Amino acid sequence: MTKTAAIIGGGVIGGGWAARFLLNGWDVRVFDPDPKVKRKIDEVLANARHALPSLSDRVMPREGRLSYHDTIAEAVSGASYIQESVPERLDIKHTTFAAINAVAPNAIVGSSTSGFKPSQLAQGAKNAAQIMVCHPFNPVYLLPVIEMVPSPATSETTLNAAKEILKSVGLKPIHVRREIDAHVADRLLEAVWREALWLIKDDIATTEEIDDIIRYGFGLRWAQMGLFETYRIAGGEAGMAHFMAQFGPALAWPWTKLMDVPELDDALVKKIADQSDAQSGMYSIRELERIRDTNLVKILRGLKTQNWGAGAILNNVDSAAKDTDPAPDLKGLVRTMHRNVPLDWIDYNGHMTESRYLHAFGDATDRFMEIIGCDGEYIASGGSYFTAETHIRHLDEVHAGAEFTIDTQCLMGGGKKMHIFHRMRHIDGRLLATGEHMLLHVSLETRQSCPPAPHIEAKLAEIARNHADMPMPEGAGRAIGQGR
Amino acid sequence: MTKTAAIIGGGVIGGGWAARFLLNGWDVRVFDPDPKVKRKIDEVLANARHALPSLSDRVMPREGRLSYHDTIAEAVSGASYIQESVPERLDIKHTTFAAINAVAPNAIVGSSTSGFKPSQLAQGAKNAAQIMVCHPFNPVYLLPVIEMVPSPATSETTLNAAKEILKSVGLKPIHVRREIDAHVADRLLEAVWREALWLIKDDIATTEEIDDIIRYGFGLRWAQMGLFETYRIAGGEAGMAHFMAQFGPALAWPWTKLMDVPELDDALVKKIADQSDAQSGMYSIRELERIRDTNLVKILRGLKTQNWGAGAILNNVDSAAKDTDPAPDLKGLVRTMHRNVPLDWIDYNGHMTESRYLHAFGDATDRFMEIIGCDGEYIASGGSYFTAETHIRHLDEVHAGAEFTIDTQCLMGGGKKMHIFHRMRHIDGRLLATGEHMLLHVSLETRQSCPPAPHIEAKLAEIARNHADMPMPEGAGRAIGQGR
Repeated sequence: MTKTAAIIGGGVIGGGWAARFLLNGWDVRVFDPDPKVKRKIDEVLANARHALPSLSDRVMPREGRLSYHDTIAEAVSGASYIQESVPERLDIKHTTFAAINAVAPNAIVGSSTSGFKPSQLAQGAKNAAQIMVCHPFNPVYLLPVIEMVPSPATSETTLNAAKEILKSVGLKPIHVRREIDAHVADRLLEAVWREALWLIKDDIATTEEIDDIIRYGFGLRWAQMGLFETYRIAGGEAGMAHFMAQFGPALAWPWTKLMDVPELDDALVKKIADQSDAQSGMYSIRELERIRDTNLVKILRGLKTQNWGAGAILNNVDSAAKDTDPAPDLKGLVRTMHRNVPLDWIDYNGHMTESRYLHAFGDATDRFMEIIGCDGEYIASGGSYFTAETHIRHLDEVHAGAEFTIDTQCLMGGGKKMHIFHRMRHIDGRLLATGEHMLLHVSLETRQSCPPAPHIEAKLAEIARNHADMPMPEGAGRAIGQGR
Repeated sequence: MTKTAAIIGGGVIGGGWAARFLLNGWDVRVFDPDPKVKRKIDEVLANARHALPSLSDRVMPREGRLSYHDTIAEAVSGASYIQESVPERLDIKHTTFAAINAVAPNAIVGSSTSGFKPSQLAQGAKNAAQIMVCHPFNPVYLLPVIEMVPSPATSETTLNAAKEILKSVGLKPIHVRREIDAHVADRLLEAVWREALWLIKDDIATTEEIDDIIRYGFGLRWAQMGLFETYRIAGGEAGMAHFMAQFGPALAWPWTKLMDVPELDDALVKKIADQSDAQSGMYSIRELERIRDTNLVKILRGLKTQNWGAGAILNNVDSAAKDTDPAPDLKGLVRTMHRNVPLDWIDYNGHMTESRYLHAFGDATDRFMEIIGCDGEYIASGGSYFTAETHIRHLDEVHAGAEFTIDTQCLMGGGKKMHIFHRMRHIDGRLLATGEHMLLHVSLETRQSCPPAPHIEAKLAEIARNHADMPMPEGAGRAIGQGR
């Protein structure tokens, strides 16, 4: 099989398909009569190159070759996979499939359509066996889901070959076994959309309030478990049938303007409970709760580094607490950290991961810099300290949730240099690790070392004087493997 | 204001409220006549203690005092905030509010109800001004959203005081300005639920397929942007009104069995476009795309460390690629890493963060261990190498997306000890950093050092012999600040 894909239609969706194949090492051949197609695809590719390689912990394959073609016949030549993303008009779709079939009568053809059923696409096709819906979600280069909907005429061989190809570029095809209008996801989205329009029309909530209610609430749940697995947890150990019994009656209440409701009879309850057992029954509710909670912590902490959505709320809480901190005492060792070990800092054994020791020491160094005046405002003005060298000794283990502190001794501070020594201690007093660091003050413009502003030099010198009489810490000045 | 909350009703929701207040330093007084209440709350607290402290990058306040009380009167005594989470029966709610009012006639009372409107709750109340809906989402100790719905009789002072209290424990109250059945979120959820029931009843998809379509697709979008901000991006620079014009017509199509559809007239389109501008107009579409994509990368990489949902898909892709790697050449330096710098490894300036150098060196060490036979299977059998000491020299900067390698030299390997030296190079050849590490083989049972299995000792000795004639790397054996 050649790793060559043809992309017919180069808008945001076609461009997303092109990016996903190209960045996974496939050659991509594009047909789109729009004279702006190169610019449009370049824009999507720029976004994809920014984000997609971050999904892998290996080097990406070398990018494939991207080429543009004047005809469908030329574009699909030699392609092992063809994706159609032309405008949502059935006549254009049919013309496209005919042009593909004329030169590639047995090639695999997926359609990005959300509006048409595969049997509608296949109407009048010379080879209906080659056509199926492969409906992606924007951004196609990041979201894995593909609704794969065959028509009754789609060949099973073709369907399975398409599945393997899509999986190989990181997608997750979900085989929708019966074709219906809008497939599955857009049925759900359309229901939410209609309900949301009513909420806005009736002045119950604004677009922002509705979005906030989603992204601070059930959106976080749905990024990792869906509707049914979430409700399975709500039902507790009694299971899904219990949940249905408890919450099912609300179905009959006139809460919504969308009112055609399936009868929740015993057969439907059993069907759902059985499917839920098959889906999630390998986990106890307690296990599902822990999985859900750790997933949520990792999602929330990711958003926290972005200062976005639910993550921004967490930063607000930290900032409000920081505002009430007392001024640091600079006479003795400087307290530069006091926190718990979060769940995203531990390995599969529950111990803090090696690199998070440096994460903690780096944050402690940032706090020390802030204390001497090298704060956000100063850094924005163009100066900062960069770490040149680090020496860490791992002395004891620490588990998730453990409370620990870092106290910092200034071994030397003057001119461009700052030499500091961090002691990380469990709150019970155990020394967990030490971090010795040499930093250089740099100009963020030239990236070269230079002296800091006078107020910083003065504050650092004050702390260095205060610490001058302290004994040299055990382990400082040591090379790797050097005896005590 | 005392930091004391009363929790009336101690199920999963009441327990979640108790945990959120308690772990944020509030005293919590619980009333629930269920003899199993302590066990139920202990279970929620165990989950909350596992996860909630991970949301903060500061030490948590000291946990408040948790107490159980035999009467509502005793439980609410001295409470600045009272949360009602009793069963969803209006008569029980009314009795509860009357009992609260008898001893706390002006206290703030939030209700967890999803099924009743605040004016229904306030029927017959002595002081309707003190009652409002504060509807949380499970797990209450992690999800920030609270639908805060006052009745017309709720006092604005009370409402605002409640908002400040809830914000102080990390919640995000959304003020729903008009009361309706089921508030806002459950209207949206109910619409999805009804549509999903049809999909299952009609055998279109199973519970698992529906969940997968959500969590591999739009659920990831909704964890960070909601419905409208996502669609704003789909509309492109032309904005929300353009999106409505493009996709609005589908509203009238018979895609769903839920069919009462608001008329999408000019007034409703303008209302939505204006609200969307107010919500997101400070960002260009290009900026929103980048924010969305980086958010998605961080969510996906968080799930990858959990090997769950969309993150498990990413691990599958990495594993499949690894299976095709050639066997490592052990004669020269050992290639232990070849990857790109992902977006979650960089700081706000776009440079790789200090601690991620150790992350990369740690992963390279893991790979080296795997190569000498200390792989997953061996570790599961009870032996591993722990890092005792690390020395890092930061020599050059590297940006997001950059491709780099790590090559590893074995300086010494024998007995319990392994002394290795990593060179991290940009693919253009620049030396970015070096990492020198001393590791000790340990028994994972005793956590004490001990010799490795013979096959590992032999393989390590073979590499050490191969490397014995290589020159000592520049920078090896150096202490911090020691000249070259």
